[in-house]
Amino acid sequence: MFKETFQRYLTMIEETLAQLPWRKNSLDESMYYSLIGGGKRIRPVLALASAEAVGGKPESILRAAAALELIHTYSLIHDDLPAMDNDDYRRGRLANHKIYGEAGAILAGDALLTYAFELLASLELGQPERELRIIREVAVASGKDGMVRGQVADITAEGKVLTLPEIEEIHKGKTGAILTVSARLGGVLGGGSEDDIQALTDYAQALGLAFQIKDDILDVIGDSETLGKPAGSDLRQGKSTYVSLLGLEGASEELHSQILKAQAAIKPFGQKGNFLNELALYIEERKH
Amino acid sequence: MFKETFQRYLTMIEETLAQLPWRKNSLDESMYYSLIGGGKRIRPVLALASAEAVGGKPESILRAAAALELIHTYSLIHDDLPAMDNDDYRRGRLANHKIYGEAGAILAGDALLTYAFELLASLELGQPERELRIIREVAVASGKDGMVRGQVADITAEGKVLTLPEIEEIHKGKTGAILTVSARLGGVLGGGSEDDIQALTDYAQALGLAFQIKDDILDVIGDSETLGKPAGSDLRQGKSTYVSLLGLEGASEELHSQILKAQAAIKPFGQKGNFLNELALYIEERKH
Repeated sequence: MFKETFQRYLTMIEETLAQLPWRKNSLDESMYYSLIGGGKRIRPVLALASAEAVGGKPESILRAAAALELIHTYSLIHDDLPAMDNDDYRRGRLANHKIYGEAGAILAGDALLTYAFELLASLELGQPERELRIIREVAVASGKDGMVRGQVADITAEGKVLTLPEIEEIHKGKTGAILTVSARLGGVLGGGSEDDIQALTDYAQALGLAFQIKDDILDVIGDSETLGKPAGSDLRQGKSTYVSLLGLEGASEELHSQILKAQAAIKPFGQKGNFLNELALYIEERKH
Repeated sequence: MFKETFQRYLTMIEETLAQLPWRKNSLDESMYYSLIGGGKRIRPVLALASAEAVGGKPESILRAAAALELIHTYSLIHDDLPAMDNDDYRRGRLANHKIYGEAGAILAGDALLTYAFELLASLELGQPERELRIIREVAVASGKDGMVRGQVADITAEGKVLTLPEIEEIHKGKTGAILTVSARLGGVLGGGSEDDIQALTDYAQALGLAFQIKDDILDVIGDSETLGKPAGSDLRQGKSTYVSLLGLEGASEELHSQILKAQAAIKPFGQKGNFLNELALYIEERKH
């Protein structure tokens, strides 16, 4: 049942992304290249599942869910730039700047971020106040006090040994803020109550932390082919991770405790929370 | 009267920009550095004046006007990057990347763009439909079919001899789209009718073209100190400009004809259009 639902969400998301009114020019091509390059689509899946958990229709928030993937993709393109992480590969394919050049990659990222807000402002769900609230929340989560700040903190931390609270602070910004707002977006636009939205927030915060811990574990125990990127790169770069600080066993325990926390948060949804419940298990067990 | 009104708008804008809730960290500092570095503030001034022309209160749309300047500033920071135009100076000061590094400048630009949408989604004017419309319009004007596309076209055109329609197409994207949406923002949020908004659109399109022609003229006849950037750089780079295609006299004539067009568009506003009328003259006569 979980797999079928996941596939149903994925199909809706891939179709929505592919069917946006792309133009035939180099800029759109560059945006499309990075957007359609695979990826787990965790953010839009989380949004659709959250909408369904509060009794909403995932079909009606597809453009909003797609906007989250656009923002995620823009952040990956800019992160991979020579001036930033200088990565040549992403999701097992050449990074955007390796194909379209640095200027092309900077502009593709800028355009994806801007297009995300165009989509969010074009939902026409007949709930303008909720739509404005979501634009505000997505901007806050993506911007100077959210994702961009996380990226700055990550760059600043390079080569330093970090404490656990410092690592958590970076991840809260880099990935946590957007994951959390993805769940809230589903809750708000799906018509959830404030209690529903709070439950989804607690769930997503724990899930985001679990996601990152699992990433750190996979960097140590995964193989490069399954990961689609070189394994062991954190270690080689001397990066502080959950594993370097807690050890493999300690990190696995912390991962499990976050999964339990996530599952506890969505108890109130009962059966409607089934997918989110299994999504947490999927995060714990994923291989890439 | 024109000067006093201009000064009144400028003071409101500078205060709004300076008093945003900036934090004490390197990211906010980098954003602030480029934002408060002078500049003509044409976009927010145009927004405030347009609001007043349709009978609205400029004070009530200050955050929206500020968002336009944030977007303009982000575009300048990214344009100046080594991978793009590789400019070391901007507005007579060091470019952002010369102080905060390339990664810092990319992220400051990303954060300014995102913050602009946060501000636009936080207006709370009690007209959520109009607020959503403006977010949509600003995103379209700034993004892949507006400003970013203009920048791509500009880069693609480097070293080529362009025709007049090709130059106009680039400028429509690079500067025209944002100038036009600035006037429309003032018209929409100021409570203007659709006729008002159309008049402001026609005005701003002519003004944007005039602005660019004047830029090209100043590059030839201005001196570097007044301009705050090296004069004659278009010529040295072999760039096609209005002057290279029409000659100085031809460009001046075209400039004047656009000014007349702008002034004609706002006739219906009568006295309330006085400032916009004189703003057009100011654009024609500006020295930098």
